[in-house]
Amino acid sequence: MRDVAIVGIGSTQFGRAQWSLLKMMCEASHEALADAGAGDRRPDAVYVANMGAPRNNKMAGLASALVDRLNLYPAGAETIENGPASGASAVKHGLHAVASGMCDLVLVCGGERMQEVNNFEATEFVSYLSHRYAEYVYGVTLPALAGLFARLYMERHGVRPEHLAMVAIKNHANGAKNPRAHLRIPVTMEGILTGPDAHNNNPWIADPLRFFDCCPVSDGASAVLLAPAAMAKEFKPTPVRIAGMGQATDTHAVHERPDPTELTAVRLASEQALRMAGLKPKDIHVAELHDAFTILEIAESEEAGFFPKGQGHKALERGETKIGGRLPINPSGGLKARGHPVGNTGVSQIVELVRQLRGEAGDYQVPNDPRNGFAVNFGGFGNNVLATVLTRGV
Amino acid sequence: MRDVAIVGIGSTQFGRAQWSLLKMMCEASHEALADAGAGDRRPDAVYVANMGAPRNNKMAGLASALVDRLNLYPAGAETIENGPASGASAVKHGLHAVASGMCDLVLVCGGERMQEVNNFEATEFVSYLSHRYAEYVYGVTLPALAGLFARLYMERHGVRPEHLAMVAIKNHANGAKNPRAHLRIPVTMEGILTGPDAHNNNPWIADPLRFFDCCPVSDGASAVLLAPAAMAKEFKPTPVRIAGMGQATDTHAVHERPDPTELTAVRLASEQALRMAGLKPKDIHVAELHDAFTILEIAESEEAGFFPKGQGHKALERGETKIGGRLPINPSGGLKARGHPVGNTGVSQIVELVRQLRGEAGDYQVPNDPRNGFAVNFGGFGNNVLATVLTRGV
Repeated sequence: MRDVAIVGIGSTQFGRAQWSLLKMMCEASHEALADAGAGDRRPDAVYVANMGAPRNNKMAGLASALVDRLNLYPAGAETIENGPASGASAVKHGLHAVASGMCDLVLVCGGERMQEVNNFEATEFVSYLSHRYAEYVYGVTLPALAGLFARLYMERHGVRPEHLAMVAIKNHANGAKNPRAHLRIPVTMEGILTGPDAHNNNPWIADPLRFFDCCPVSDGASAVLLAPAAMAKEFKPTPVRIAGMGQATDTHAVHERPDPTELTAVRLASEQALRMAGLKPKDIHVAELHDAFTILEIAESEEAGFFPKGQGHKALERGETKIGGRLPINPSGGLKARGHPVGNTGVSQIVELVRQLRGEAGDYQVPNDPRNGFAVNFGGFGNNVLATVLTRGV
Repeated sequence: MRDVAIVGIGSTQFGRAQWSLLKMMCEASHEALADAGAGDRRPDAVYVANMGAPRNNKMAGLASALVDRLNLYPAGAETIENGPASGASAVKHGLHAVASGMCDLVLVCGGERMQEVNNFEATEFVSYLSHRYAEYVYGVTLPALAGLFARLYMERHGVRPEHLAMVAIKNHANGAKNPRAHLRIPVTMEGILTGPDAHNNNPWIADPLRFFDCCPVSDGASAVLLAPAAMAKEFKPTPVRIAGMGQATDTHAVHERPDPTELTAVRLASEQALRMAGLKPKDIHVAELHDAFTILEIAESEEAGFFPKGQGHKALERGETKIGGRLPINPSGGLKARGHPVGNTGVSQIVELVRQLRGEAGDYQVPNDPRNGFAVNFGGFGNNVLATVLTRGV
């Protein structure tokens, strides 16, 4: 098995795109190829991460369409779908292709354009990820599951609404510094929780979760170019090695888990990724976690091994997860502020970590000279999770 | 890179299923695991091939749902979408995972349930594979593209309507012997082309293509279990090695091809698969080609290198592609009679070849003791094609 490096990255502005899905994906892909200095070298394969195109954009075979628009034939191409974890899954398939020796250069591009559907439809669509007969038919949505999860978790571990707001405040502050973030509006505790207008600014979505506890519905695309680590010096930027990847599934229906506040798949995937990389949680210098809901950033930071169970909100309170803290989490703004173009999110997390490891994150660069980055990409409501460890250099 | 074997196969009855998509996929998967004699050994990963679930069945994250139903957590899982070539694409990703050493046992399951949509909707849905701005918006459907292709091809190579009918007659005769085929109705030249009722039996779809030149819209699921060739002896059946896989993309819009009658992606994918296997076309003993339209079986048999360009219909006329002929093509009935559950088809082709190579195809067993099998799985209108070479034994 060959070591695999990321030799190029690209991404669009996130938010409400003026462009088609395919054009966004072209932009991100072109940027990754240009960033690598790939020149005339063409990918052997193109893997697309997308969740909604066959429903929302009336497009199947999106990967073939991207190859066509990029003029990359006869490169092999597929779309990888794993709900909100499609992005990391597509990178994993790229890792396999290069590691096996079947391919040298693989372009992985995530893209989602959600604006074809309104917010109610988006919630319905994302509910396709819930259990068809045990959840979906009863009208369970992902925000509803997150609300139930949050309530139990908060009661058990003494997490208060202020802690959830702290995640939002931190990630909005970070996103405000990220020129490609969807939401660049810093928010305050007074504005979203304690002030006189807080209830108007921040209405209930699924008690105890409010508007600012939920990520936006975003358009966006991101891309990475993978190559064997041994070939990385043939490309322009500082290479970043995919040191470890882990993946785990869990019960589809959340209520079937022995303890519904345990995100077992996050724990197993993280352990597997760290073991493959030969690292411990304390060796990680920067992380992008899947904060589709604020409570998830806290829970994932514990399941990944960064903080003991029930202590994540205290680390947050102490500022350890801010830019400049001991372990900056979501310096890009996370899903909360950078945005959540669903199938693309896992690729964008990896792109943001590469920016940090190369020292190219500008205003949101973490100052601790990070060498090891870590991402959690969370599918369904924790039924299919991937963790990735990236290390600067080959 | 490790050699990879198929150590278990399974498939449902094709046609109009009484069961849900997920239940069909469970049945095929259980059969593959039982066929392998896998016992307590659990797959490390589950790859699903499907095209339409997010639109037609209101399900995303289908792979996670299958893991749940099969009780296979924490196995990693993804859905691979490549239109009608999703099946072979998913097997390819399984090959990469095992070849790289990242996984040992990988279950690949293809499934599609099309009955939620009527035939007009099915045609609309499959049109999502056409070029969004150069074809789809003008109402171009896949049957329309196939009709245009057939007309030019027939004029250029002297193919007559009788030759198209011969493909249908051969494949319906084969399908009638396959207990899992969708259509088990033998048809005759008189019945579908020359007899007094032929026009009523076999109306125009897209001139020169008639009803019996088009595959049915089917439900069905199939599965294969992959393992390193070195571990194949630990499983029950005669192993079959994935000796070669090739893949190529072509222009999205058919009219952009220098010669629209050339299926360049079929040629390139076939050459690549045979090169990887170290074989020539003459070494192949049985083939499953992608006869979504009868003309495609003829054209693919030439592009794959079995017959010179423009000579495929003559080989057909001479009976060389019948069961018992020099190179039996589609002994299972092909898409034409076995059926075409879109995203599943590539997996079902491979399952049918394994049956032939093991000598377990019963009434439709080809009699030439086949050792090497070959499949073409055709995506879009030839914009993304995979070819597979299977060899008996490891």
